[in-house]
Amino acid sequence: MWQTAPGHAVVATTDSLVEGSHFTLPLSRDDAVDLGWRLLAVSLSDIAAMGAAAGPAFISLAVPGGWPLAWIEGLYRGIAECGARFGVAIAGGNVSASGTAVLTSFCLGTVDRDRVLRRRGARAGDQLAVTGPVGTAAAVLRARGGAEQVPGGWAGSARPSPRLEAGRLLAATGVRVAMDISDGLFIDSGRLLEAAGCTGLVIDAAAIPVAEGVRERWPDHWLEVAGGGEDYELAFVAPPALMRDALRALAGTGMEPAVIGRFDAGQGLRLAGGGGEGPPPGSGHEHFRR
Amino acid sequence: MWQTAPGHAVVATTDSLVEGSHFTLPLSRDDAVDLGWRLLAVSLSDIAAMGAAAGPAFISLAVPGGWPLAWIEGLYRGIAECGARFGVAIAGGNVSASGTAVLTSFCLGTVDRDRVLRRRGARAGDQLAVTGPVGTAAAVLRARGGAEQVPGGWAGSARPSPRLEAGRLLAATGVRVAMDISDGLFIDSGRLLEAAGCTGLVIDAAAIPVAEGVRERWPDHWLEVAGGGEDYELAFVAPPALMRDALRALAGTGMEPAVIGRFDAGQGLRLAGGGGEGPPPGSGHEHFRR
Repeated sequence: MWQTAPGHAVVATTDSLVEGSHFTLPLSRDDAVDLGWRLLAVSLSDIAAMGAAAGPAFISLAVPGGWPLAWIEGLYRGIAECGARFGVAIAGGNVSASGTAVLTSFCLGTVDRDRVLRRRGARAGDQLAVTGPVGTAAAVLRARGGAEQVPGGWAGSARPSPRLEAGRLLAATGVRVAMDISDGLFIDSGRLLEAAGCTGLVIDAAAIPVAEGVRERWPDHWLEVAGGGEDYELAFVAPPALMRDALRALAGTGMEPAVIGRFDAGQGLRLAGGGGEGPPPGSGHEHFRR
Repeated sequence: MWQTAPGHAVVATTDSLVEGSHFTLPLSRDDAVDLGWRLLAVSLSDIAAMGAAAGPAFISLAVPGGWPLAWIEGLYRGIAECGARFGVAIAGGNVSASGTAVLTSFCLGTVDRDRVLRRRGARAGDQLAVTGPVGTAAAVLRARGGAEQVPGGWAGSARPSPRLEAGRLLAATGVRVAMDISDGLFIDSGRLLEAAGCTGLVIDAAAIPVAEGVRERWPDHWLEVAGGGEDYELAFVAPPALMRDALRALAGTGMEPAVIGRFDAGQGLRLAGGGGEGPPPGSGHEHFRR
């Protein structure tokens, strides 16, 4: 049982990691632990994006009967470690046998109902910002795919930190529009635009923060990497004066937020400056690509 | 967003239906609708078993990319119909592509924190009861497996009604120990015993309510049917005086509850009378049977 404070609402979110789409077998012991961490982190990231404090979480595992016990134990260890790191109790769940492994996390949260962050509401003149560097997970994947060395500085992507503190700070500062960018910066920026009260959004390519060395390593493809998804940063929207307050609040905690764009009366999502003009590369994760 | 009343706690539950274990393909349109209904009903049954009022629900579908759109539409129609029937809003969810279909429902509920029903706490002298007939789903399966006719009176098992009203009435009456018996009457009675403050439970086989004709059709196997699982009735526990109040409260709503056993200082779960002596047949659903 779990109670909420007066004036607070319950929010909830669920996400799945599916064998073949989000991870491949076999798993090493470390892979299993990282996967468990990520399973909880994906839902916590959604809670963060609402500006909510995380409540209890629930885990539903559908895995083949033949899975080694070490994988299951590794998963639960990673889930527990992520829960412990972010103060989230694993309150229950379910295990079933399935041909394909489908790992689902479900997380509750609580938020002051007048301060919840939503996707809708951006207006012309508002700025778009991110809480930190994007594309790190995609950079690791691309480097591994080319059998290139992965710099130590990119390693954190195996155990991403959902931006719970950032979400709460943004909500407390008065920001009202945000979302997580797990499907990719450009896809999710497009969603903020779809839900906006205006027609255009220009992203300044030169202002997009990416992990060190990404621009240099892939001068022709770094934008695809930047939009490659599996990011755990938040995108948020505010008019310039409020944005200054929000950036100050975040910077005080060691994050490296950056303003990367501006909503306007133009047509659609466009890139400008720093190597890109026109629509951004259509990368990121799409379900049921046809 | 969703709010709870003062003094009320949030409860939550999740359950999955997996291709190959809980349903088989292909689906007819009607099968898909029934499956969607059942997907929500399994979680609502857990909410009912806590004596809680159902809050919003969330659906996570992992299905093969090649699934006909009609199946997906059927699923959502069944989910929506079940939600409408029980006043449950479908508040969100997730869809992913998976080799095996894994359908997961997650449901919130709210309950007066001093009146929540729990599995633990049965004591010697307490009676065990069920809210209505058990084994109907198993009877339908057995009849179909033998290419026998399925009586019209058993048909309701395709769209089971989670016992939300019964759960709330039991909680309001003062009952404190209950659980749902979806894994089978005997398996779940054993769980009530494991969580009890005493060592024994005798179930009177003659007192177990089953659908009309089940005892006659399978005189040697009706107990296996009775314990066959996929039931949506609740089992509940109370001392005799409180049990009388509870039965009266339930009967007033048209349910047909029945006292079927008694906790005692004996050893383990035993059947007595009506065709069975000794331990009950070990049927019902077991995950990861080895």
